Amino acid sequence: MANPTTAITPTRSENYSEWYQQVVRAADLAENSAVRGCMVIKPWGYAIWENMQRVLDGMFKETGHKNAYFPLFIPVSFLEKEAAHVDGFAKECAVVTHHRLEVGPDGKLIPAGELEEPLVVRPTSETIIGATYAKWVQSYRDLPILINQWANVVRWEMRTRLFLRTTEFLWQEGHTAHATREEAVEETMKMLKVYAAFAEGWMAMPVLQGSKTDGERFPGAVDTYCIEAMMQDRRALQAGTSHFLGQNFAKASEIQFLDAQGVQQFAWTTSWGVSTRLVGAMIMAHSDDDGLILPPKLAPAHVVIIPVAHKPEDVAAVHVWTRSLAEDLRKQSFDGRPVQVELDLRDMRGGDKAWSWIKKGVPVRIEVGPRDIAAESVFMARRDRPHKEKSAVKRSDFVDGIAALLQEIQDGIFAKAQAFQAEHTKTIDTLEEFNEYFTAPSVAENIPTPIHGGFAFAHFCGDAKVEADVKERLGVTIRCIPIDDNPESGKCVITGLPSARRVVWAKAY
Amino acid sequence: MANPTTAITPTRSENYSEWYQQVVRAADLAENSAVRGCMVIKPWGYAIWENMQRVLDGMFKETGHKNAYFPLFIPVSFLEKEAAHVDGFAKECAVVTHHRLEVGPDGKLIPAGELEEPLVVRPTSETIIGATYAKWVQSYRDLPILINQWANVVRWEMRTRLFLRTTEFLWQEGHTAHATREEAVEETMKMLKVYAAFAEGWMAMPVLQGSKTDGERFPGAVDTYCIEAMMQDRRALQAGTSHFLGQNFAKASEIQFLDAQGVQQFAWTTSWGVSTRLVGAMIMAHSDDDGLILPPKLAPAHVVIIPVAHKPEDVAAVHVWTRSLAEDLRKQSFDGRPVQVELDLRDMRGGDKAWSWIKKGVPVRIEVGPRDIAAESVFMARRDRPHKEKSAVKRSDFVDGIAALLQEIQDGIFAKAQAFQAEHTKTIDTLEEFNEYFTAPSVAENIPTPIHGGFAFAHFCGDAKVEADVKERLGVTIRCIPIDDNPESGKCVITGLPSARRVVWAKAY
Repeated sequence: MANPTTAITPTRSENYSEWYQQVVRAADLAENSAVRGCMVIKPWGYAIWENMQRVLDGMFKETGHKNAYFPLFIPVSFLEKEAAHVDGFAKECAVVTHHRLEVGPDGKLIPAGELEEPLVVRPTSETIIGATYAKWVQSYRDLPILINQWANVVRWEMRTRLFLRTTEFLWQEGHTAHATREEAVEETMKMLKVYAAFAEGWMAMPVLQGSKTDGERFPGAVDTYCIEAMMQDRRALQAGTSHFLGQNFAKASEIQFLDAQGVQQFAWTTSWGVSTRLVGAMIMAHSDDDGLILPPKLAPAHVVIIPVAHKPEDVAAVHVWTRSLAEDLRKQSFDGRPVQVELDLRDMRGGDKAWSWIKKGVPVRIEVGPRDIAAESVFMARRDRPHKEKSAVKRSDFVDGIAALLQEIQDGIFAKAQAFQAEHTKTIDTLEEFNEYFTAPSVAENIPTPIHGGFAFAHFCGDAKVEADVKERLGVTIRCIPIDDNPESGKCVITGLPSARRVVWAKAY
Repeated sequence: MANPTTAITPTRSENYSEWYQQVVRAADLAENSAVRGCMVIKPWGYAIWENMQRVLDGMFKETGHKNAYFPLFIPVSFLEKEAAHVDGFAKECAVVTHHRLEVGPDGKLIPAGELEEPLVVRPTSETIIGATYAKWVQSYRDLPILINQWANVVRWEMRTRLFLRTTEFLWQEGHTAHATREEAVEETMKMLKVYAAFAEGWMAMPVLQGSKTDGERFPGAVDTYCIEAMMQDRRALQAGTSHFLGQNFAKASEIQFLDAQGVQQFAWTTSWGVSTRLVGAMIMAHSDDDGLILPPKLAPAHVVIIPVAHKPEDVAAVHVWTRSLAEDLRKQSFDGRPVQVELDLRDMRGGDKAWSWIKKGVPVRIEVGPRDIAAESVFMARRDRPHKEKSAVKRSDFVDGIAALLQEIQDGIFAKAQAFQAEHTKTIDTLEEFNEYFTAPSVAENIPTPIHGGFAFAHFCGDAKVEADVKERLGVTIRCIPIDDNPESGKCVITGLPSARRVVWAKAY
C-alpha cells in the first residue's frame, strides 16, 4: 500500500456502512458466498468465533449446563403448535419439500421424492427441543434440564450484511426446563448476566441490560431480556437475548411432570442465545480507519513478529532469534492460555506485512532486525495506538511483561468504548430535545458521520402505538427497559402521560 | 436393577444389533427424534463427540490446517458440475424449494415463496467449497489452501441406526488445494495417518489402512483411502476416509492458478472426513454385556466417586472427604488435561448409582464409606474388569497413580481389540476356504453369535464383476487394498487369475 492516509477507504466518518464492509474484507474475516444470503467465514473470522465459543462454552459449563445436539429439521406441524412463534418465523423459513433429485425432461436435475410433511430448516429450536423434553420429563426429579446446543440456524433474510444479518448463521441456543416459575426466571437472569460479563470482560464492549417491550419480544416468550451495545455510529446493536418462556412452550409441547405432591404440572422453560453477530458487533465497536482492532482476549494472535533482514547474510540469524523469541512468548500465559504468536516469515516487504497485521487487528506487532538483536531489544507497536508510534523495548522486559501489556490493551479498549457510550448517552425530558437528539447532525472528531445523538434515557407511557409512531417518524426504537428495582417515575417524553420508569431509546441495527 | 446377570439385554451373542441399541440407550448417548432418520445426541454422547473433536482439531492444527465455515446450502447447478459426484449424491438429498410458509385453504401451513433454483442441504461440500477456492486462487503463491470445517451434513437414508447411519450427522471435512499432484497425494496420505493415529491412540481401536476399489470409491475421487476397524461381530466398519480428488473438482469448479512459469494450471485437491459414526464404532469395538466401555482418553469422566453413607450422621463427613478427594484427583493430569471426576451425590441407592456408571462406561469407579475414610483408603473398581472385582487402595496411592492407571486401562482396551482382530483375521488361498470362512458358524466364548470368520486377506484379480458377484453371493466386500510397497503377487482366490496383491475382504457396516 503506497503511503495511505488510512488503510481503510472510506473512513468511518465518510461512510460507516461501507467502512464496515471494507474492514471485514481487509481483515479477511468473511465474504459473501454464491448462495443468497449465506456467508463464507474465512479462517481469521472463524478463529475469532472459535475463541468466543471456547470462552462462552466454559461459562455455560461453569453455570451447570451440558451440550447436546438436536435435529436440523423441524416438521411444520411442530412450528404450528405455538401461535406467536409460528407468526414470528413462518415468513422466513427455508422449507425442505423433497428428498432426492432426478433428471428432468430438459436434462436438468429437479426435486423428486416429495415429503408427506414439509420440514423447516430450524430458525431456532424451541419446538423440536420441547418435543424431546416432553419425553424426558415425567417427574420433578427429572428437572431442571440445563442444555445448550452449538448449531447453525437459517432465517431467510432479504437484506443481509456479513456477520450482522445472514440467512444462515452460527449460534448457541440454551434451552432449560424447570419445576417452578421462580427457578426459570432466575435462570433467565443468570444467563443474561453471563452474556453481559462476556461482552464486557472479553469483547471489551460495554452493554446495557434490560427487558424488551411487547413489540420487540421473542415470538412466544413471556419476557425477553437483552444486552445492547453502542456501535461507533451511535446505533444500538442487540448482542444477546435471554427469554423467560413461561409455560407457553411447555403447553405447546406438553412438557409435563408430577410435582412432589403428585400433581401434574407444566414445566417452565427458558431459552437464550448469541450468534456470529457478535463478531460483527466487536468489529463495529472497536475498529478504526486502519482496520480491525481486536480485544486481546479474543484475538486469534496476540503478537505478530516480523523479522526484518535487508541483507541476505542477516536472514538466518534473524530467523533463529525471532523463533526463539516466539517460543519464549508462547511460554507466557494470558487469560488462561499460552500467548498466541504469529511469526511472519512470508516472502514479502516488511511494510506490507505490518499493514496486513494492522488490518487484521493483532494487538501487538514486533519488528526485529540485526540492530535490535545486537541491542537485545525489540521494536514494538500497539494496535490500540497510532500505527507510527513504535518503541524499543528490552527483549526480556517485553517477554516478562507481555501478559500485563495485553491486559492493559484489553482494559484500554473497554475504557474507550465506555467513554464513547457515556459521551453519547443522554437523559432527555422534553419532546423537543428528543426530536432534536435523533435528527440533528452534530460534530465530533474521528467518529462516523454523526447523524444523531446516541442513546436516550427517557420516560415512556407504555403505549405500543406511541412506540410504533416514534419508530415510523424517527427510526428510533426502545432498545430495552433497564433492570432497576427502584425506578424513578415521571412523565412520558412523547405523550406526557405517567411513566413508571425511563427506557432506552436508540436507532438500531 | 435386581441382580441382573448382565446389565444389557440381549447380550452380544444373543442379538448383536439389538445389544448395540440397548447399550446406546442404557448409556444415555442418543435417541431417535421425531424427525425421520435424525437423532438427538444426548449430553453423555455429545461429550464423547466433543472429546473426539478436541483431539482431532488439535491434530489438524498441528498439521497446518485452519478451520473455516461454508454455507449449508448448495445450488443444484453446483452439484451437477461433477458427473460422478452428482450420481453419487442426487438420490439422497434434502431439497429446499421454498423460503416461507403461509396459511393454506385448510388452515394448515404450506410452503410458499418458491426458489428460482432449488438448494440442496449439503451432503458434503466439495462443490460449494470448490466454487469459493476458485475465487481465492490466482497464483501458485495462493497455494496450498489447507482448511477444515466442522459441520452438519444430510444424506437422506432409508434405514438408519443411531450414530452409524443417520440422515443428519455431524462431521469434519477437510478440503485442501495444491499446486502439484505430489503435494495433494502427500496430503491425502498424511490425513489418513492422522485418522489411523487417532483411531488407535485415542479410540483404542486398531485399524487397517488402504485404498478402495473402483466400486467403493467416493463419487468424484481419483483415489479413496480409508481406515477400517473390526467390530465385535467381526464385521468391518469404515471409520474415516481421505480422498485424492486429482483435478476433477478443480476442473468442475475452475480452481486455476498461474504457476511459477506463468502457465495456467488446474489445482489438485483433496478432501477427508470423519463423523459421529466414530462414536458408534467405539461403542461396538469395546463395550460388553454390561454396557459401554470407554477408552479413558475419550471418556467424559475418568473417575466417578460414589459416597456411601448408610447412617445419616455419616453423610456430612463422607461428603466432605469425597469432595476433597475429587479436588485432589482434578489436580492430576491425564493426556494433557485435568483428570475428569464425577462426584455422584444423587439421592439414590449406591448399587443403582454404580450400575448407572457401569453402563455409561466410566473407566474407574470409587466407593467411599466411613470405614474407608477411617483407613484413609478407597474401594476401587475398573470398568475393563468384571464388575464384582473391587479392591481397597490407599487414597494417596490412588491419587498419585491415577494417570498411570488410566493409561493402563487405555492400553489394555487397545490390546484386547488388537488380539480380537488378529484372532479373526486369516490369510486365505482357496475358494472353498473363502466360502466357508464367510458362511460357517464357529464357536467362541463371550463374543457375539459368530456368523462368519472376520477379515480375510486374499488375492483378487481386479475384476469389478467378480467383486460384485461376491457381494451378491456372500454379502462380502473388499474393505481395502492395503498399502504395501512390495506386495506379494499370487492368484485370485475367486477366479484363479493373476493378482498383484492381497486385499481385505469382510462383511461390513
